[in-house]
Amino acid sequence: MFQILVILHKQINSYMLSYEGHILKLRNRSIRAARSCKELRDRYDEREDGVYYLTTGNGMLYQTYCDMTTAGGGWTLVASVHENSIYGRCTVGDRWSSQQGNNADLPDGDGNWSNRNTFGTVESATSDDFKNPGYYDITAEDMSVWHIPNNLPLEFWNMEAAAVLRYHTGNRFLRLYGGNLFQLFKQYPVRYNVGSCGDRGPAIPIVYDHGDKESTRMLYGPSSRREFEPGFITFRAINYERAAMAICSGVKPTVGYNTEHYCIGGGGYFHPDQCGDFPSFDYDRLGREQGWSASREMTEAAVLLFYR
Amino acid sequence: MFQILVILHKQINSYMLSYEGHILKLRNRSIRAARSCKELRDRYDEREDGVYYLTTGNGMLYQTYCDMTTAGGGWTLVASVHENSIYGRCTVGDRWSSQQGNNADLPDGDGNWSNRNTFGTVESATSDDFKNPGYYDITAEDMSVWHIPNNLPLEFWNMEAAAVLRYHTGNRFLRLYGGNLFQLFKQYPVRYNVGSCGDRGPAIPIVYDHGDKESTRMLYGPSSRREFEPGFITFRAINYERAAMAICSGVKPTVGYNTEHYCIGGGGYFHPDQCGDFPSFDYDRLGREQGWSASREMTEAAVLLFYR
Amino acid sequence: MFQILVILHKQINSYMLSYEGHILKLRNRSIRAARSCKELRDRYDEREDGVYYLTTGNGMLYQTYCDMTTAGGGWTLVASVHENSIYGRCTVGDRWSSQQGNNADLPDGDGNWSNRNTFGTVESATSDDFKNPGYYDITAEDMSVWHIPNNLPLEFWNMEAAAVLRYHTGNRFLRLYGGNLFQLFKQYPVRYNVGSCGDRGPAIPIVYDHGDKESTRMLYGPSSRREFEPGFITFRAINYERAAMAICSGVKPTVGYNTEHYCIGGGGYFHPDQCGDFPSFDYDRLGREQGWSASREMTEAAVLLFYR
Repeated sequence: MFQILVILHKQINSYMLSYEGHILKLRNRSIRAARSCKELRDRYDEREDGVYYLTTGNGMLYQTYCDMTTAGGGWTLVASVHENSIYGRCTVGDRWSSQQGNNADLPDGDGNWSNRNTFGTVESATSDDFKNPGYYDITAEDMSVWHIPNNLPLEFWNMEAAAVLRYHTGNRFLRLYGGNLFQLFKQYPVRYNVGSCGDRGPAIPIVYDHGDKESTRMLYGPSSRREFEPGFITFRAINYERAAMAICSGVKPTVGYNTEHYCIGGGGYFHPDQCGDFPSFDYDRLGREQGWSASREMTEAAVLLFYR
Repeated sequence: MFQILVILHKQINSYMLSYEGHILKLRNRSIRAARSCKELRDRYDEREDGVYYLTTGNGMLYQTYCDMTTAGGGWTLVASVHENSIYGRCTVGDRWSSQQGNNADLPDGDGNWSNRNTFGTVESATSDDFKNPGYYDITAEDMSVWHIPNNLPLEFWNMEAAAVLRYHTGNRFLRLYGGNLFQLFKQYPVRYNVGSCGDRGPAIPIVYDHGDKESTRMLYGPSSRREFEPGFITFRAINYERAAMAICSGVKPTVGYNTEHYCIGGGGYFHPDQCGDFPSFDYDRLGREQGWSASREMTEAAVLLFYR
Repeated sequence: MFQILVILHKQINSYMLSYEGHILKLRNRSIRAARSCKELRDRYDEREDGVYYLTTGNGMLYQTYCDMTTAGGGWTLVASVHENSIYGRCTVGDRWSSQQGNNADLPDGDGNWSNRNTFGTVESATSDDFKNPGYYDITAEDMSVWHIPNNLPLEFWNMEAAAVLRYHTGNRFLRLYGGNLFQLFKQYPVRYNVGSCGDRGPAIPIVYDHGDKESTRMLYGPSSRREFEPGFITFRAINYERAAMAICSGVKPTVGYNTEHYCIGGGGYFHPDQCGDFPSFDYDRLGREQGWSASREMTEAAVLLFYR
């Protein structure tokens, strides 16, 4: 059966000589049946970056972006974190923290780090929050993270020059945490008051695909730089006021724990004026790279999360 | 043509010997053309619970869950009511009442009981509100209702042991009300101040698939139990303060009419602090099963609505 | 390849003698591969109004409505503007202005006039805001606009008698502005304080398909009628208080510039109590057609935007 599909695919490919062929090729991707980009690469030998169809274990169909080139390819885009309004404090659009206002009665906020809710579309992943069924459905080993400028069109995402920061893990750490972030954050809830500064989740070493430890350091505010070690991705950080954050991208908090200035996502309660998807990246004015404020390029980039 | 599809289906089935086959089988469901799970059962002899493709009369495609076993099968999941935050009072996420705050100027609230808006996905139906085009597109005769725990994964929904309460109607009552809830709630608007306590919509007797009259009674608060008769599903209840609710699941209000403690969904205005998808299920503290408070299992279960 | 598809299509058509055939025909539309309704008309000779599948340049699939009859057909529905609550002031549901409250710190509001976010479904386009990928993906020359009553079902949209107002442009103006509204509003941002009354975007003459200049005039309030000239569609208007609006449908502002009473969509900040998708259509009471208040039929109609 699969051979037939592959033969059919090759026959169809011979018609691909035109714009119409291009569109038709994209549509023909719908005949594949795979649960992840890794499967598409391994089984159908797909090698091109772009939008593909995937199917969950229960048969739900969706489309997302596959990175088929970085470090061997097979990376599935499962989510993006986009700060729609740094002035909004857990208001509409803050799906990775809370849309219910800063509220200690809702310690988990919207809870999207560990539920099956989905939102957004692949083409709007740099202009809006995105979460697809792969987030909870795919069993993976490693993660890749791309910080790319807000509103960058999908056809330019894989231009390395456009990236603010790109890296992946290589030690198969997700095997230890249930195979994806949905399971990892069941073990390490992104919840207000769940623990204290010392109780962070795993900090995993990263391999840089664009940038390095020094450039990572410079993406955050000067005051933040004294608190972390670059070269890691850290899950479920907790700050001094017992607020929880989901991901410290590129860094591991080591002292001080004012993580609201350099970690993203969160539960439903923060120190006043800090609740949000990028909680307090603008503490010393937006994008000024002074005091605790992150750089403008970091603040105005979407964070794309991939599994493999 | 249909015979060809059935033959093709059977040929394809012979390849279904593996995980890949499983995924491929799910994808092949997309070649069916049906408007409801009942059609899938009647025309294509589909007998397995799970996710299928359906098409509206206008040709809009969607996926939902079919219960192909209960009482002969053919039940289409068209909606779920999920209380995302009992502390939210008609805030973001209260799609079955109002997301605009408690507001007498908006007597219909979001109006989703009688419009064509849709939201959510089938796999997140126990962790978020869900409404698909079947809600208004399918012409049906009966309803089935499942109360199942929040966040239960789809692959376990049909385990009867997991259910809090399950029942269906058997008297084809929807024939009298336009064939679906969209039409029924046109006749009985879920609107603040549309009438008084006596003006409820139909109360239809139910057949239990999990639970019984006594267990239904115990799911609500002790004070509520004095006000209703179990063994029914009631549509468009009105409480003492003239607030409207959409469904009293498992019960018929008979006296007192403090229906905000045991009926779900609503218009846009309630007594202060009672506006929401599960309006005042927590009146005497959340999930304590004391006074007017419903049981924890009821409060923390999603309500899945099926048509046949 | 395309001939094969066309032949297949015709063979399938011969089975179309029944309800089942109707549904199957709609499903078979999914085998086409086109980026716009114009392509469906030109390449596959589709001539029937209704719901079709389209594919973006990146391969993302979606469904929308094609008007295949007006002035030669080939019109793709890309968006609808629906006022869910004239009492809501940039609250949840005001996707074409702001869902963040009236806020001068967010001059662009939600920014949906010039980003790739999408929302809603084709069948709910008269009961909710709708924006599909065609809005930014299709390169077009002209626009068509339909004002049709809220909640009108899709199967009646093309009944001219149901329309409040319908018109199209014929001068290929979009060629000058990047081929679609996404690009046009990059040039003319819908942003608070971006300019003053004189700085409006293009005003394009229209051809009426239902209504005329006089009936257009009467759809707005008596006070508004003194400020505009009918027979145009105007983009990015700015009012006296420097608030920006996206579209003045059917008219060109000429004096006074109280455009909040007759232009729709907007940035994130207006004079108090005027923020919203239909900003201040109810200034002198809702739907009363007195003073600055627009007519009830205009206020209670969705605005459907098509490209060709």
